[in-house]
Amino acid sequence: MKRIAIQGIKGSFHDIAAHLYFENEELDMVYCDTFSELFQTMREESNTLGLMAIENTIAGSLLGNYELLRSSGTDIVGEHKLHIQHSIMCLPEDDWDTLTEANSHPVALMQCHNFLSHHPQLKIVETFDTAGSARNIKEKNLKGHAAICHSMAAEIYGLKVLEDHIEDNKHNFTRFLVLSNPLFADDLRDRNRANKSSLVFTLPHTEGSLSSVLSIFTFYKINLTKIQSLPIIGSEWNYLFYVDVTYQDPIRFHQSIEAVRPLTREMKVLGEYTAAK
Amino acid sequence: MKRIAIQGIKGSFHDIAAHLYFENEELDMVYCDTFSELFQTMREESNTLGLMAIENTIAGSLLGNYELLRSSGTDIVGEHKLHIQHSIMCLPEDDWDTLTEANSHPVALMQCHNFLSHHPQLKIVETFDTAGSARNIKEKNLKGHAAICHSMAAEIYGLKVLEDHIEDNKHNFTRFLVLSNPLFADDLRDRNRANKSSLVFTLPHTEGSLSSVLSIFTFYKINLTKIQSLPIIGSEWNYLFYVDVTYQDPIRFHQSIEAVRPLTREMKVLGEYTAAK
Repeated sequence: MKRIAIQGIKGSFHDIAAHLYFENEELDMVYCDTFSELFQTMREESNTLGLMAIENTIAGSLLGNYELLRSSGTDIVGEHKLHIQHSIMCLPEDDWDTLTEANSHPVALMQCHNFLSHHPQLKIVETFDTAGSARNIKEKNLKGHAAICHSMAAEIYGLKVLEDHIEDNKHNFTRFLVLSNPLFADDLRDRNRANKSSLVFTLPHTEGSLSSVLSIFTFYKINLTKIQSLPIIGSEWNYLFYVDVTYQDPIRFHQSIEAVRPLTREMKVLGEYTAAK
Repeated sequence: MKRIAIQGIKGSFHDIAAHLYFENEELDMVYCDTFSELFQTMREESNTLGLMAIENTIAGSLLGNYELLRSSGTDIVGEHKLHIQHSIMCLPEDDWDTLTEANSHPVALMQCHNFLSHHPQLKIVETFDTAGSARNIKEKNLKGHAAICHSMAAEIYGLKVLEDHIEDNKHNFTRFLVLSNPLFADDLRDRNRANKSSLVFTLPHTEGSLSSVLSIFTFYKINLTKIQSLPIIGSEWNYLFYVDVTYQDPIRFHQSIEAVRPLTREMKVLGEYTAAK
């Protein structure tokens, strides 16, 4: 049985992603209030894994989670891509004509903005969690309240789904990373099937420093699938780069890292894993 | 007098940024409900300028605004960086012991998460605008409600500030772009002082296509200050790149664009402007 820490509760998107990634395995879930608590749990329990959202096709990168990951010392051992779909649900005795309020996490509310604008009778009240809104409505028997979250939360908390697929954008995917204490990372990843890696490094603000690094990757047949620069707060002429690469030959990948390392500062390989479909 | 369209109302961060960028000029503001409406206004009135947030040091890039900008046909003629600070305010007769609810835009509420967690008596209710919450409290005489927004909104709407600087992160900056119809862009920018440009292009997913482009920029002494890749939805093996560059010599910049253009697809120069301090 694997022990997995996530931010969120039963029925949250993190919970759903964890169960899809580890399908057919029994999981012992640790439900954390915050991402910081997730990493705190992983520090205290070396054999507990983590699963954390890192980017979304609409909202972009979760910069705060990148920063937590970089400073955590954990290793990425896998990734999962989840199609984000929202449903609106309420107590079984409620219906459209009795609802007065919609509850969800602010990001989910924004993702259903068009849908909500067609239901102006619903007061929009933010909560700290998507599935948490469903649980809260059930536990406190909140008549007139609707929750917006994944339809699976309706099953878990005994609510009635009024409408599925209420998200504005149907191409909404979130990418999650599976994290492990480095001690156990090699047992969890299939070294022979690793074909993707996430890197973070800083570069001096000298002309062409990034193009040199990328040229070397090209010479070693390493492909970029994502690149994002971030200014380092308080150090304006230096930049942090988050890069995802894919490759066919892990040996060539390791060689390329050693080849670019002298041109970078603080190069960290955040993990090697198998790319999600 | 300049006519400027923004998303938001009087006292919003966009309004404040517009008045700081065009300091000492009289402005005729067009307050729009959405960013789409801003671009619609600019299409209908060719001499109306726009000012729009594009990225934030905490939240990252506003991907939706990048997409609107790319398809709008408008030109960037300037940029402004604003320090985002929040205050909590209420009706003059209210005080801490009479407040029951905090209203603001979901992003502002998230940015004051620590502060709000120390005031659990305040129910957090999201609204569509920061300054709009202040206006609403004044207009509807909402006793017990507090608004979270820039302190200037308290002056504008006659509210009492209870506490300033309630944002969790003090290094919160938003970068705004000043936009114009291309017909008038040259009158608005100081060609001789232009030292920054924003580009967007796609690249075929061939090995090293990005490193070739960046190498050419290096040969022409063009510096990257930002790079961000985005997968193109529905076209998985192609990527969209948003790049900001700075340069000393505008002629070399124009030459570099012509040199990289054949290696890219759909290269668009979104504007040339003077970098903000």
